[in-house]
Amino acid sequence: MPDLSYRAVEMPESPIRKLIPFAEDAKKRGITVYHLNIGQPDIETPAGALDAVHNSEITVLEYSHSAGIESFRNELSHYYRKNKIDVSKDDILVTTGGSEAIFFALMCCLNPGDEIIIPEPFYTNYNGFAVAAGVKIVPVTTHIENGFALPEIEKFNEKITTLTKAILICNPNNPTGYLYSRKELDLLSELVRDKNLYLLADEVYREFCYDGAEFLSVMNLKGAEENVVMLDSISKRYSMCGARIGTLVTRNKKIKQAALKYAQARLSPPTFGQIAGKAAISTPESYFTKVLKEYSGRRNLLVDMLNNMDGVQCPVPKGAFYAMARLPIDDSDKFCRWLLEKFNHNGRTVMLAPATGFYATKGLGKDEVRIGYVLNIDSLKNAMQCLQQGLKQYSCNTIIEESSSC
Amino acid sequence: MPDLSYRAVEMPESPIRKLIPFAEDAKKRGITVYHLNIGQPDIETPAGALDAVHNSEITVLEYSHSAGIESFRNELSHYYRKNKIDVSKDDILVTTGGSEAIFFALMCCLNPGDEIIIPEPFYTNYNGFAVAAGVKIVPVTTHIENGFALPEIEKFNEKITTLTKAILICNPNNPTGYLYSRKELDLLSELVRDKNLYLLADEVYREFCYDGAEFLSVMNLKGAEENVVMLDSISKRYSMCGARIGTLVTRNKKIKQAALKYAQARLSPPTFGQIAGKAAISTPESYFTKVLKEYSGRRNLLVDMLNNMDGVQCPVPKGAFYAMARLPIDDSDKFCRWLLEKFNHNGRTVMLAPATGFYATKGLGKDEVRIGYVLNIDSLKNAMQCLQQGLKQYSCNTIIEESSSC
Repeated sequence: MPDLSYRAVEMPESPIRKLIPFAEDAKKRGITVYHLNIGQPDIETPAGALDAVHNSEITVLEYSHSAGIESFRNELSHYYRKNKIDVSKDDILVTTGGSEAIFFALMCCLNPGDEIIIPEPFYTNYNGFAVAAGVKIVPVTTHIENGFALPEIEKFNEKITTLTKAILICNPNNPTGYLYSRKELDLLSELVRDKNLYLLADEVYREFCYDGAEFLSVMNLKGAEENVVMLDSISKRYSMCGARIGTLVTRNKKIKQAALKYAQARLSPPTFGQIAGKAAISTPESYFTKVLKEYSGRRNLLVDMLNNMDGVQCPVPKGAFYAMARLPIDDSDKFCRWLLEKFNHNGRTVMLAPATGFYATKGLGKDEVRIGYVLNIDSLKNAMQCLQQGLKQYSCNTIIEESSSC
Repeated sequence: MPDLSYRAVEMPESPIRKLIPFAEDAKKRGITVYHLNIGQPDIETPAGALDAVHNSEITVLEYSHSAGIESFRNELSHYYRKNKIDVSKDDILVTTGGSEAIFFALMCCLNPGDEIIIPEPFYTNYNGFAVAAGVKIVPVTTHIENGFALPEIEKFNEKITTLTKAILICNPNNPTGYLYSRKELDLLSELVRDKNLYLLADEVYREFCYDGAEFLSVMNLKGAEENVVMLDSISKRYSMCGARIGTLVTRNKKIKQAALKYAQARLSPPTFGQIAGKAAISTPESYFTKVLKEYSGRRNLLVDMLNNMDGVQCPVPKGAFYAMARLPIDDSDKFCRWLLEKFNHNGRTVMLAPATGFYATKGLGKDEVRIGYVLNIDSLKNAMQCLQQGLKQYSCNTIIEESSSC
């Protein structure tokens, strides 16, 4: 049998999906599992977006333009302008999900063996794209003690080598919920201009900012126009993850042209997703007001309940729909598996994402979990009660492997 | 400004798309352009597939399983079994178009710097995926004189080095329309087993075989189960290019597992495309009978008209919906551009694909073009009349650059 490529062997398994068999087993035993481990929103997709697909009049389902349907890119430029990001349709490449935007950006900005600095913890799939692109992720650690704020800029400086080509941030952040300040973004802007680096920014959670906090896009960093590539997606914004539509947005014409060549090779993004995406842009403000109120309520409940548990610490996330919590546990992978395998509270348990998968530095995240608030308030309450009970039992139970009663 | 990566610079532009501005200019001048340069079928998508999307009852457009919706994979296995390819849903990974299947296969089977042997002329986008994957395409030339049949197996042997990891074929072939014989496939099977190589096969034109010719899949090469990876798509089969749904099919569990990790990183294939694809599997046989009759009629007309032109040679394609023709011209790129820029016949012209883009060996294809029969009989007839007139004018016109009258 021929060998697998080493990049097939090195490709990481999704650290979240590793736990799925245990969740499935729990369900087979009749246990209700609250899925707070995922980034799949439970919010309804805007009806207008779905209706556009239902009513689409297509006789031949053709390839679209490789850069995306022109009228969709026009609408997208209106959407961005409304969000104070002044770009034209020519600055926008429609991609197959935000995933493809990330991949194209890595392929166009970095050579194999080059390095990209990413504040950790970070979205686990960056690891997968880095292996696919053959580039090395160099983490700069952020800390729960100060709410995962950007580390001092010196920490970035220390990591820059001749191989460093880019810095990647996610703002608002998955998994931490951190929202970057103007000062932090200005510092990053100065750094990338000074060191001649690209600044890639995954801004897919733009709409999800709480407490009236303002979102600031890297697209508005004056003087860094040639350095900045924004990666975006309609998946979270309109609860349309299955549409597989994202965008790569940049004023750097060379990057845009190069990404277009990658886009041409794969022919076109999905047509129905683009139809839905175009219609979604007309979603009324009231939809977002309602969604934001819902998420904000969930966040408040979640953070309150967590911080009221013994030994639990959870900084208040300002954006996205995740919270990172420090728990009084020895090993988050073991604990999350234990919750599914050995534990239940009145026939219920909760599935969380061990934070280890979000850190590139080995050993970090062992006492942290990511919690997505993608369930309604009642389910979230039940899930947090499960967690509280779980923590009580786990602490007195880590040695007695077979019993789940305390 | 930071530098582009070399793989962004090296990424080829689509050689077909390079001519698009000239076609657009011709249209602006009021000239009708017959597009025989593309692989976009004009055939209607099966109504059942579109209806399934129109009637889909989705409230939250969620990610699907990374490997594709399970019930769709089940249906796909039925489809394959009906086509004498005995695979289960577990051998099938749903991809975002056949494009992604090709890319995943390259990433999993080859390391950067490795070599893949491909009979040329070949589908131009293989070049793009090869650059993205950092692998080297080593061509084995096939010749119009013998209808682009597989060269003697010694020609492959000569090209095999320690870096060779795979052979890639497209069957039925784009751009040549060649259909591989049992003997040819057996020879390839023996070779890959003997040399411990992968055999990748792009079989997206499976349904398009003429004159009662039988299609043979690499999936039925006994003893080569671990070597074979089949790459497929619903784009051509059901005229659903915009769905962006393909499959990677293999009995090699390691490749399947590795490709699944790549699939997990990009989360999921498009949901609406999968809904359409699942419904399309129930398309009645009568649809294909009609489509095949239509293509077959077009092919006959095309080949007859071409071979009746002075100095033109066009072998009869047995499959797909392309023909390669040798024309009495000096430079196919120049000629195809000239047809758009300088020529018209009663206000009409034809757009063809210069064959140079389908060869990896520099200098080949200069007197050949690829012609897709993706227009109805009447348009095809008009287009061929344009070509005939064009050839007459071009031959006496290549020196008088400014005039288009003969």
